Amino acid sequence: MTNTPQSTDAAGKAGLVVSAHSADFVWRAAGTIAAHVAQGYRMKVVCLSFGERGESAKLWRKGPQMTESTVKAARREEAQRAADILGTEIEFFDLGDYPLRVNDEALFRLVDVYRDLQPSFVLSHSEKDPYNFDHPLAMHVAQEARIIAQAEGHRPGEKIIGAPAVFAFEPHQTEQCEWMPNTFIDITEVWERKRAAIECMAGQEHLWDYYTRVALQRGVQAKRNIGITATRDIKYAEGLMRLTPTVTGVLA
Amino acid sequence: MTNTPQSTDAAGKAGLVVSAHSADFVWRAAGTIAAHVAQGYRMKVVCLSFGERGESAKLWRKGPQMTESTVKAARREEAQRAADILGTEIEFFDLGDYPLRVNDEALFRLVDVYRDLQPSFVLSHSEKDPYNFDHPLAMHVAQEARIIAQAEGHRPGEKIIGAPAVFAFEPHQTEQCEWMPNTFIDITEVWERKRAAIECMAGQEHLWDYYTRVALQRGVQAKRNIGITATRDIKYAEGLMRLTPTVTGVLA
Amino acid sequence: MTNTPQSTDAAGKAGLVVSAHSADFVWRAAGTIAAHVAQGYRMKVVCLSFGERGESAKLWRKGPQMTESTVKAARREEAQRAADILGTEIEFFDLGDYPLRVNDEALFRLVDVYRDLQPSFVLSHSEKDPYNFDHPLAMHVAQEARIIAQAEGHRPGEKIIGAPAVFAFEPHQTEQCEWMPNTFIDITEVWERKRAAIECMAGQEHLWDYYTRVALQRGVQAKRNIGITATRDIKYAEGLMRLTPTVTGVLA
Amino acid sequence: MTNTPQSTDAAGKAGLVVSAHSADFVWRAAGTIAAHVAQGYRMKVVCLSFGERGESAKLWRKGPQMTESTVKAARREEAQRAADILGTEIEFFDLGDYPLRVNDEALFRLVDVYRDLQPSFVLSHSEKDPYNFDHPLAMHVAQEARIIAQAEGHRPGEKIIGAPAVFAFEPHQTEQCEWMPNTFIDITEVWERKRAAIECMAGQEHLWDYYTRVALQRGVQAKRNIGITATRDIKYAEGLMRLTPTVTGVLA
Amino acid sequence: MTNTPQSTDAAGKAGLVVSAHSADFVWRAAGTIAAHVAQGYRMKVVCLSFGERGESAKLWRKGPQMTESTVKAARREEAQRAADILGTEIEFFDLGDYPLRVNDEALFRLVDVYRDLQPSFVLSHSEKDPYNFDHPLAMHVAQEARIIAQAEGHRPGEKIIGAPAVFAFEPHQTEQCEWMPNTFIDITEVWERKRAAIECMAGQEHLWDYYTRVALQRGVQAKRNIGITATRDIKYAEGLMRLTPTVTGVLA
Amino acid sequence: MTNTPQSTDAAGKAGLVVSAHSADFVWRAAGTIAAHVAQGYRMKVVCLSFGERGESAKLWRKGPQMTESTVKAARREEAQRAADILGTEIEFFDLGDYPLRVNDEALFRLVDVYRDLQPSFVLSHSEKDPYNFDHPLAMHVAQEARIIAQAEGHRPGEKIIGAPAVFAFEPHQTEQCEWMPNTFIDITEVWERKRAAIECMAGQEHLWDYYTRVALQRGVQAKRNIGITATRDIKYAEGLMRLTPTVTGVLA
Repeated sequence: MTNTPQSTDAAGKAGLVVSAHSADFVWRAAGTIAAHVAQGYRMKVVCLSFGERGESAKLWRKGPQMTESTVKAARREEAQRAADILGTEIEFFDLGDYPLRVNDEALFRLVDVYRDLQPSFVLSHSEKDPYNFDHPLAMHVAQEARIIAQAEGHRPGEKIIGAPAVFAFEPHQTEQCEWMPNTFIDITEVWERKRAAIECMAGQEHLWDYYTRVALQRGVQAKRNIGITATRDIKYAEGLMRLTPTVTGVLA
Repeated sequence: MTNTPQSTDAAGKAGLVVSAHSADFVWRAAGTIAAHVAQGYRMKVVCLSFGERGESAKLWRKGPQMTESTVKAARREEAQRAADILGTEIEFFDLGDYPLRVNDEALFRLVDVYRDLQPSFVLSHSEKDPYNFDHPLAMHVAQEARIIAQAEGHRPGEKIIGAPAVFAFEPHQTEQCEWMPNTFIDITEVWERKRAAIECMAGQEHLWDYYTRVALQRGVQAKRNIGITATRDIKYAEGLMRLTPTVTGVLA
Repeated sequence: MTNTPQSTDAAGKAGLVVSAHSADFVWRAAGTIAAHVAQGYRMKVVCLSFGERGESAKLWRKGPQMTESTVKAARREEAQRAADILGTEIEFFDLGDYPLRVNDEALFRLVDVYRDLQPSFVLSHSEKDPYNFDHPLAMHVAQEARIIAQAEGHRPGEKIIGAPAVFAFEPHQTEQCEWMPNTFIDITEVWERKRAAIECMAGQEHLWDYYTRVALQRGVQAKRNIGITATRDIKYAEGLMRLTPTVTGVLA
Repeated sequence: MTNTPQSTDAAGKAGLVVSAHSADFVWRAAGTIAAHVAQGYRMKVVCLSFGERGESAKLWRKGPQMTESTVKAARREEAQRAADILGTEIEFFDLGDYPLRVNDEALFRLVDVYRDLQPSFVLSHSEKDPYNFDHPLAMHVAQEARIIAQAEGHRPGEKIIGAPAVFAFEPHQTEQCEWMPNTFIDITEVWERKRAAIECMAGQEHLWDYYTRVALQRGVQAKRNIGITATRDIKYAEGLMRLTPTVTGVLA
Repeated sequence: MTNTPQSTDAAGKAGLVVSAHSADFVWRAAGTIAAHVAQGYRMKVVCLSFGERGESAKLWRKGPQMTESTVKAARREEAQRAADILGTEIEFFDLGDYPLRVNDEALFRLVDVYRDLQPSFVLSHSEKDPYNFDHPLAMHVAQEARIIAQAEGHRPGEKIIGAPAVFAFEPHQTEQCEWMPNTFIDITEVWERKRAAIECMAGQEHLWDYYTRVALQRGVQAKRNIGITATRDIKYAEGLMRLTPTVTGVLA
Repeated sequence: MTNTPQSTDAAGKAGLVVSAHSADFVWRAAGTIAAHVAQGYRMKVVCLSFGERGESAKLWRKGPQMTESTVKAARREEAQRAADILGTEIEFFDLGDYPLRVNDEALFRLVDVYRDLQPSFVLSHSEKDPYNFDHPLAMHVAQEARIIAQAEGHRPGEKIIGAPAVFAFEPHQTEQCEWMPNTFIDITEVWERKRAAIECMAGQEHLWDYYTRVALQRGVQAKRNIGITATRDIKYAEGLMRLTPTVTGVLA
């Protein structure tokens, strides 16, 4: 692959994923997570909420015995299993959804995660999403916490972080969200793992094939963007929108 | 540098620079050129014009003995010397400037350059420049030729090209050109070479310090974008705007 | 009119208007309201505030006997009369203005309105307005409440809503607000009603002719956009900016 | 479908499709074409070129016996068969591709098509496409011819056209083209016809499944945009970007 | 007026207006022209075409005796009378319209106008106009000629120009043209003159009241933008979009 | 300078600067402040925070004896000295930083400043800044307070303000902030004063030369934008982005 930076040594490297609801990281970033785990990265997912109100329709339809508490438990269990399959850590902030609200206490908890993890990149939602206002808020918080984690005056004496690259993963209706994939990750080798994680999401089975098709389309596009003369085959890919500049010594 | 793709083997690799006028490649891309030459890339600059009418004010002021022919010769000699210092090939299309006009014959000549060179990236001007309409045209032609060079039906039997990454180098007044540096190249180690190339441009001495300051500012910004905790020092940099997606296996 | 969807049966159909201040819905959407009432829609206006501080200059100038309470009462009475003329329901949230602040309690009250009304479309302000920060907030809340009203987990058991189309009505200085009318409503037949509603706004008489001219200009533009060969005459129109996609079986 | 304008009488109605290369109309608009044919519209496709150089790689690889002439004949035959399946007229301008060049003679020929057809809408490519410069040119020409066809002073005495709505159909990599689907057409009932037309394109078999997945994804999105409470099922859809305003009497 | 630069001495000052068709400068810039004439500026209008094909519908409808030649003569006479009323010079390039085409000979003729006039500002159309492709072309040419007129190598020895400010005057449907008035000119004192110039345009009487209302609306907006506490009254105004930066010593 | 509005009488005129952290106004607006003070304006800076956590790294590194209180005192002293050198008033709101949070009490305090000062212009940060979320918030608050200060119903009886022009001063990485300098202020004559103010910022010495280079680059650009034929020399300048329209009687 002509455009691939080769990380020959990922020792000590880490990546963070900030997910508004407990299933978002699976549809949108499971391949990227698994691919980095396979290269030795420590990966961590923070779920700001369980998506218990807005993204659990199928669970609620089970009947009146369902409560916010039982729905949250079911969602937590699904997300934990997916994380285990992908090999990533996962932490639940349980802040509520529809609407998600993030106070400064939660913000500082996320700062702590950054400082502990020292990630070289962070993934979260698109900055605009007219279908879901929790998503842009998650990205906003992910960036605000990143900035605070860089500040020496926040809990002086702690080890600050560098400048982890910020990426927005793929929203459901990309064009309405003004999201553009300027980065494609080849996830062909970890595809089975992503599909297995997807299948943990019993409550949203209607999305399984949707996101399988997304991976196939992004695979075709990734291949197009390295040129048909490239020998490497890419079948499945994830698209990401990089928001921060790249600093490099070689272009391609 | 945390975000650097490491090209361990540049054997057979090449890069193309499409410059509207004969000095543009120096101010805007000399560091990138020199850095890739240093890594073993074959680099080639195509100058669509000499900038004899629009960018040679100082030469014209030498007096009535100056003609288009003498100005062009002086501009050619300056550009050739700069290219030699940088270690890049250079080819002059001599299409005229203010206004630059590119017919299909010239377009196909550029296609031939692509097919011969087989570059993995191409650099040209910003897609908008209200101060200079030759600049966006050069970028347009650089992209159109790239697309044609990919087509099997253009001179069937010739070796087509892959999908070289497209970058816009820095214009004079970046914000008016809607240009944003999403990529920084560390040129600290080749800075002396860039400054030497700049000093070949006797006719535009007022720009020497301007572009030295540009390199210093971009250096500060590049450092900021890898984080103050990074150990690597960057003093001089060039900013580039990548227009085509990156395909990669690792994010940062 | 070539581009008109014909609603042959509006039985049970409804539309919602979310107005930051108590007069906004008149200047910007009275024609659309009246036109839909005439077709049998149930229409409802929610006024988040009375505009008592920021849009009642003329009332305040009456002298020191004016208090927030008397100004609000006067504004309420004007808005109620306009609503009666237009044939729309109206509800006042009385949240205050300059600045408008919307807490979650008010947000959920608006969710209740959505679920009760089951509208097929909602109108509110432009998403940007540098002259008035209450306006974009009203639109933000209108959209956030719409999303929550769709969530099965919000007050499980209640009837959720579908996907009402979202429109931004015309702000005072359209271009500064990055607002574009991609939809024109012919209000020629209900114009007299709109003008009568406008004349209820005794406190803002300077705007009567301004918005009459707006209606005439939009009428000319609407006619231009169906083509001069169209037989239908349009004298008055309102422009709207549709934010959500249209799903249709026929284009035009 | 809540947002559907119902055209009860399509008698005399027509639609135009301007396709840069001879297969574009199939991938991007075959469903829309078939759906309108089914409702009684006269549909016409204009292919500006055969795509003989840039989009016929598989044909060229058949061997040295292939010439521009044989490739064009093969492409013409495929497009004609697809048009027949869809029930649309088709006309070939044979202007060449990679690069497509349109002189004023060809422009006026397209004006004649407009005036003869008197379409109520026109479909063409996205206004930007960094992967293919022929595409935006086709859209530019489609719009320029539309404007000239409206001018009474162009061939005075001829019947001018009204203001056909302009739509951009879906490009290959939507986000890179700054294309957004603000209109979805339900093509479920004509899907088999579209797939049959697609299968005429023997030279681009790698795209068959790609565009089948596109239709499925757009189907899911269309359903989302009418709301999950809507009773109508949509399985396949096409996305379009409407560029001209809608003039209507009812919103949704 | 708080934001007004006071030109205490306009001696030797000049302004240029580049109009695609012979009436455009009247609707869109007559007030600005008259206001500067009143302050002693030399003003000059260049009409690239007469608008004989696209903007003379009423003339063509007079019957079969009308020819391109008679229509052009009528349009020329109207424009000349308007120019006389406004006190501006006017020059007709007669390049044809719908479509307007500008070759390099015409471009250089416009360069000559710049160098002769030495304007401190230039006005032309919006850079985008989906309703009229001649308009953006006129602006493009106005800017390209401006750049060439600055080049010492274009006809060396001639007096080059400085950097005249570039403004786009108001298009017919502003929002569709992505045009924003960042500059308002108070034309109250010269309004009668503008109206008189407008009434020269016998062939487009339907636009007289339209552009009178435009002037009234822009007047209200201009007043709003200096604040209601300002003592100066503005009844009529023109909106302009400044494209080039302001260089100043005082902000407001 | 051709584009300069000449304020012949600044008696009673004033300007406001809203700075997120206590040093921002120096790097970004000290020249503009000093230039207006020199012309007789009353200038006032409001520092919303001291930047004690996010912009005082060097102070924190002095050792464990540093506390938030000592850091704030040091920052206050630096800012006060810079203000004294520039001749501007300064007021500290001490709201905290990283993250800055502004409640309605602080908002109304800023409204009071507007009403007391009656400024003809206000300067604050860019509306977007991915490197620093306190900056856009400061601009938001600056604009919201401006709107409230215009409302007669806010503390009725107080003197409301007019419509002060709003400018965004230069952020650190301009292009990433979507900031464009549409206004250049010549600060050549007050440069020494700005440099002296800069040198008060002992804690951020690494920025001294950075912002000196910024001033030189903007000087070159300002000169370019008045044209090389202009006689006036500009060596140092500041770039500003004007957000509100200009109302004027003469263009240039």
